[in-house]
Amino acid sequence: MGQLHTRFGANYTPSQGWFHHWLDFDLDVVRRDLDSLAALGMDHIRVFALWPHFQPNRSLIRQRSIDDLLSVVDAAAERGLDVSVDGLQGHLSSFDFLPAWTQTWHGANLFTDARVVAGQAEYLRALATALATRPNFLGMSLGNEFSQFSSAIHPQRSAPTTAEADAWLETMLNACKEGAPNAWHHHSEYDAAFFDGRHGFTPSMAARHGSMNTVHSWIFNNTAQLYGGMSEPSFRLAEYLIEVSRGWSSDPDMPIWLQEVGAPSPHVSAEDAAEFTRRTLAYAMDCENLWGVTWWCSHDVSRGLADFPELEYSLGLLANDQTVKPQGAALADAARGYREQADSRPAPAPRTTALVLDVGDETSAPNREQCAPGGLFFEAWMALAADGARPTVVLASKADDAGHLAARGITRLVHPADVDTTAIRHDGGGATGGGAAGLRPTASGGATMQSAAAQPVSNG
Amino acid sequence: MGQLHTRFGANYTPSQGWFHHWLDFDLDVVRRDLDSLAALGMDHIRVFALWPHFQPNRSLIRQRSIDDLLSVVDAAAERGLDVSVDGLQGHLSSFDFLPAWTQTWHGANLFTDARVVAGQAEYLRALATALATRPNFLGMSLGNEFSQFSSAIHPQRSAPTTAEADAWLETMLNACKEGAPNAWHHHSEYDAAFFDGRHGFTPSMAARHGSMNTVHSWIFNNTAQLYGGMSEPSFRLAEYLIEVSRGWSSDPDMPIWLQEVGAPSPHVSAEDAAEFTRRTLAYAMDCENLWGVTWWCSHDVSRGLADFPELEYSLGLLANDQTVKPQGAALADAARGYREQADSRPAPAPRTTALVLDVGDETSAPNREQCAPGGLFFEAWMALAADGARPTVVLASKADDAGHLAARGITRLVHPADVDTTAIRHDGGGATGGGAAGLRPTASGGATMQSAAAQPVSNG
Repeated sequence: MGQLHTRFGANYTPSQGWFHHWLDFDLDVVRRDLDSLAALGMDHIRVFALWPHFQPNRSLIRQRSIDDLLSVVDAAAERGLDVSVDGLQGHLSSFDFLPAWTQTWHGANLFTDARVVAGQAEYLRALATALATRPNFLGMSLGNEFSQFSSAIHPQRSAPTTAEADAWLETMLNACKEGAPNAWHHHSEYDAAFFDGRHGFTPSMAARHGSMNTVHSWIFNNTAQLYGGMSEPSFRLAEYLIEVSRGWSSDPDMPIWLQEVGAPSPHVSAEDAAEFTRRTLAYAMDCENLWGVTWWCSHDVSRGLADFPELEYSLGLLANDQTVKPQGAALADAARGYREQADSRPAPAPRTTALVLDVGDETSAPNREQCAPGGLFFEAWMALAADGARPTVVLASKADDAGHLAARGITRLVHPADVDTTAIRHDGGGATGGGAAGLRPTASGGATMQSAAAQPVSNG
Repeated sequence: MGQLHTRFGANYTPSQGWFHHWLDFDLDVVRRDLDSLAALGMDHIRVFALWPHFQPNRSLIRQRSIDDLLSVVDAAAERGLDVSVDGLQGHLSSFDFLPAWTQTWHGANLFTDARVVAGQAEYLRALATALATRPNFLGMSLGNEFSQFSSAIHPQRSAPTTAEADAWLETMLNACKEGAPNAWHHHSEYDAAFFDGRHGFTPSMAARHGSMNTVHSWIFNNTAQLYGGMSEPSFRLAEYLIEVSRGWSSDPDMPIWLQEVGAPSPHVSAEDAAEFTRRTLAYAMDCENLWGVTWWCSHDVSRGLADFPELEYSLGLLANDQTVKPQGAALADAARGYREQADSRPAPAPRTTALVLDVGDETSAPNREQCAPGGLFFEAWMALAADGARPTVVLASKADDAGHLAARGITRLVHPADVDTTAIRHDGGGATGGGAAGLRPTASGGATMQSAAAQPVSNG
């Protein structure tokens, strides 16, 4: 497999007006923001459209908003930045933006209603068609964690079946391809796809649609709460998700994009943010075929904007006034260091130890909750990692497939029940005071303490 | 009471982009639209902000959108048009627009949540403050039929109690007054306030808050379905609602604004629209203290915009290309004729016959459904009107109040049960083929046939 030169970038959160900047679009502000990102040594950005602004009526895809989007892409090109674009926003930092033609009186399932799906496809195709004219356009993501809209909090709850979710992904990705046949199009899921057995979007979908697998790594997903924000499981969460995603992929060489990772307070204090960034990056960069790391986010949300969850105000690499924050400096250092050694340093070695993941039926993955923080599989992987094993993941259905294992360089299989997770549990309790109030229940509960007994790979 | 010179105007629906025009604001298009309305002899317009566009974040009320709004007001002034502005849109022609900071993860009751209410008040105050600088600014309506958001179709269903609804109206109207102390501020309710005993917004609220009572008269509310679009009850619906509103008002001289009335297809065909307009206006103009008539709407919705209910495409006085439609010509004729005779023609005489309305407790009005099309009260009023009685309305609690009756010139009281409604029922059945499928049930059902026996006013 060819070595990738890992890319470094940022999810672009405009410094003025947040994503509402589309309503008062000011290219000079965008240019200043991108100047700051280029100065950090970033090589790409991820850009977010606001769906109701770009397509306020199903048959009205506004040319002006597309022109503004192209202006952002061109301003990025002038600064050596490539651009990936998410269309269906959709969900951003706790705020949901859905066009009126999909809501209330016009309410319909966002994944299965023929009228809505046709409108979404038309919109993504229009964006991709326009963007395909730009040499620094990387491709589309369908929309930021769009499957958030299958959750119960949503008005016209749009929980699709697994088959419906699969069909929706296919339709949307095809629309992107029709508009920009030569670009890389993906979708992005939040960790419910990997962790929640009731979620219509499944791990296999997350890992088997699109040009790359994308990973969103957020330690507020219970990792920080259980083990502490500055704990090894928190530093390794991105690495873990990358390997879980690789385990689900049918292509051993599938590039994986750490599309979102950040240092959220209060789990990570301002003082610790640089160290968190360094540790997280060091672990993630030890994964094979990592296409890139895209930090969330470029700029802090202005305190002048109300109602954001507290942690969203301080996730920037840069402050609202373009000052470089410690996590920004740490990411810049890492990117510079990596690039200086990129040609001389060998690519990460294949991971020879694989933890066997048995979720039951692998299409619906009913038992995937063991992969969540606190779950048996999660803790077994973390324990193996702490032991220096550099674990990857293999599905139970592939554990006897010698070709599959060989293609990935796997020489040793470990079953979660055979891993001693005592140390993981203990660290977590200590770091957070053991408080687990308000945490979501995990399927595997607390009965995960087993003796470690790593097994050699069967030759069958 | 002083005679009003009734005003004629239009609800302004921009010819290009409908209310999405705020996103691509083009003052030249607005000017052309207003030229057409001025040429029809209109003297005012009602203008609608899009709430999520004007206030995308609770603490971000966009200056550019306010500037655009002021540009519309100024363009209207240049053409001799006064302007009333609705803020909280909110609900428009089946589409709902609510800011993300009130929805899903940020979901809260739109009438009682302290954070949301403070944001709404801040927004209305900001609009009113800016608009107060313009001499042709009439005042604010809080938002177009905002209490639509208390219906079950809405995500965070915000059904307020009667007391909560009352407090919300008071807070919002005060915010408008703080911004523009000398303007006329109102709220506007759809007919559920008068007809639906479960609706938190009540008839007394509709008639006792704000500088004028507003009436929205839509024959698709079951009037057309029961009696035919070109029937007397349909022609008289606006007149009826004006008198019902007057009956609920505590001020005998309260000006009443027929804020919305239109000729919806298929209930009124394109061929009949002019006649419908003439007949509706003739009846409405026979009401005392009618401040004005504001047609819905100025311009047809473009067929290029998808997903509108069919009838919304053809409600304009003007076609999308500025051509005057028959209803536009009819309204223009009526306005011209009225103005030519305004000083010589006497004001409508007081209505001496009043139908007594007993809804139970008059604060919550549990039995108001009798006022809906098909209801006992509705049909009794229509029968009396057909008899030439020019009926108005008096509340049961005031039927013995000689001062109340004298102030309104009422000399004869009639109880609904004493009115023979046979003719009304019969006409309705004939006009529509008697089909009542899909109509909402009415409390009074079909048992409304009684012998008429008008009673003299008691002298008590």
